[in-house]
Amino acid sequence: MKCRVCGKQANIRLPQYNTALCSEDFTLFFEKRVATTIRKYRLIGEEEKTLVAVSGGKDSLSLWRLLNGLGISADGIYIDLGIHEYSRVSFEKTKAMAESLRRTLYSFSLPDAFTKGIKDLSGIMRRPPCSLCGMIKRYVMNRACIEHGYSVLATGHNLDDEASALLGNLLHWKEEYLWKKGVSLDAEGAHLARKVKPLFLCSEKETAAYAVMTGIDYVYEECPYSVGAKTLLYKGLLNRAEEESPTTKLVFMKGYLKRVRQGGLTKDEREPKSLCGACGYPSYAELCSFCRLMERFGTTDTLSFSIHTHSPS
Amino acid sequence: MKCRVCGKQANIRLPQYNTALCSEDFTLFFEKRVATTIRKYRLIGEEEKTLVAVSGGKDSLSLWRLLNGLGISADGIYIDLGIHEYSRVSFEKTKAMAESLRRTLYSFSLPDAFTKGIKDLSGIMRRPPCSLCGMIKRYVMNRACIEHGYSVLATGHNLDDEASALLGNLLHWKEEYLWKKGVSLDAEGAHLARKVKPLFLCSEKETAAYAVMTGIDYVYEECPYSVGAKTLLYKGLLNRAEEESPTTKLVFMKGYLKRVRQGGLTKDEREPKSLCGACGYPSYAELCSFCRLMERFGTTDTLSFSIHTHSPS
Repeated sequence: MKCRVCGKQANIRLPQYNTALCSEDFTLFFEKRVATTIRKYRLIGEEEKTLVAVSGGKDSLSLWRLLNGLGISADGIYIDLGIHEYSRVSFEKTKAMAESLRRTLYSFSLPDAFTKGIKDLSGIMRRPPCSLCGMIKRYVMNRACIEHGYSVLATGHNLDDEASALLGNLLHWKEEYLWKKGVSLDAEGAHLARKVKPLFLCSEKETAAYAVMTGIDYVYEECPYSVGAKTLLYKGLLNRAEEESPTTKLVFMKGYLKRVRQGGLTKDEREPKSLCGACGYPSYAELCSFCRLMERFGTTDTLSFSIHTHSPS
Repeated sequence: MKCRVCGKQANIRLPQYNTALCSEDFTLFFEKRVATTIRKYRLIGEEEKTLVAVSGGKDSLSLWRLLNGLGISADGIYIDLGIHEYSRVSFEKTKAMAESLRRTLYSFSLPDAFTKGIKDLSGIMRRPPCSLCGMIKRYVMNRACIEHGYSVLATGHNLDDEASALLGNLLHWKEEYLWKKGVSLDAEGAHLARKVKPLFLCSEKETAAYAVMTGIDYVYEECPYSVGAKTLLYKGLLNRAEEESPTTKLVFMKGYLKRVRQGGLTKDEREPKSLCGACGYPSYAELCSFCRLMERFGTTDTLSFSIHTHSPS
């Protein structure tokens, strides 16, 4: 198998593009595609202050470095979920990337804020860890953007993440989530930053290959709670379909986005209408979910909410 | 494993209903569910003249007998595709059912009308056999309804057929078909009969069990051309998901229908606007696809279109 570009030994086969590439040409190809995606879908404008949600995994670390490589000055934010060794190692790798990029890293620690990690909080609140974690991450990351003047939050969701979530939402016709699967969620008012997913056209296999080929030191383990049977099932089904027809995932996601743009899916009606009485951020109820958590477990009140800033040394 | 109703040895496990039943109770359960489906989704009204599309397979023969058992006097129509032994045996079994039900059977033969079977026609027309067969069946069955005064055409599509077609249409976002997956397509004007699918909530496994348990003599072989790799792939993916979560297919189909009812999917814009210049039935072009076929291969002209009527002896 020869590299389509230089003719040397290829390192990765990309059936969805009917090609094979060597490490060097794949790296260039991958970076160019993310750059094109950002431009084509207008994910990040010129001079926009960008914050990257960093977990220490292959997707988010690759995204962070890649954005800076493309000339988009992006800082990072890390949420310490209090999952012992997993969280410690993830934070280490995230800090190392911040140092190497010489960018600011913000961090928020669940054990510091609530005296408990995600597992204990999830148990007490009788809410699945992924659901609680999602709520906390959305809140903290959005608030970090607003308070520190970032207009856009970039996350490392890849094609497999997006396509499998979309498949799950379609199989169950989850109207309230279907609409939210866009790759760019517009900012609303002064309290919500825009959210973008620059890797949404890159498969998991591709982002892993990119991280390995460019020598990114990332956490191999998946979060012990995040790997739900359903997510794995849907990723498996799509990979099976992809084997038969190597553009399945791309066609599925692009078709969906086209449909969303044409307004073919009805918009989520349940938009937050009010602002939280404690923190002033958007909320469905008088008090937002995060502030209710703060009220119950918080080590400080919600207004002295603490995000640490680690400036490059 | 005991029958949930009578406590005797169960013959079929139905994880999607969290139950197991003996042959006798399953037969009753199956018939009752089809009756409920017909009533709930208003598929066939009281006294409506109904025609069943019969292929000789388990689904359509079961449907035909079941409808008559429910007091819905339904006649049948069979299309001979000219696939040698397969077509001969299918027609025999269909005729035997017509005799046993003492109902009228209409038939249309491709070799008689065009001097060729579906395979040769497909080759000459450079159109996949399933696509050509679908066009011919839709045309002939609809025309038989209109000319013989049937207001509704019932087909034997089961849950697996419908869910896999829907999955395929969603994975490719085929807008022009998405809308058409309803279980009841309304009649339009004087030239289109209503189409209904009374078995759409019955899985393939259930309809096969029903046919076997009630002693229906059907063709086991699938049509040699109809079994596309894609259909099998999507059925396999859904069966895999169903193993993990035994209501997947039902939830998927019911959610879709709810969405369709709420108008959440945009309607097909490409409705036939005009009538065919030759036969007077709806057409996208000046001459409809069927009449173009007739013009090229027909043994008669399109107006002397021949459907044979086999009255019960």
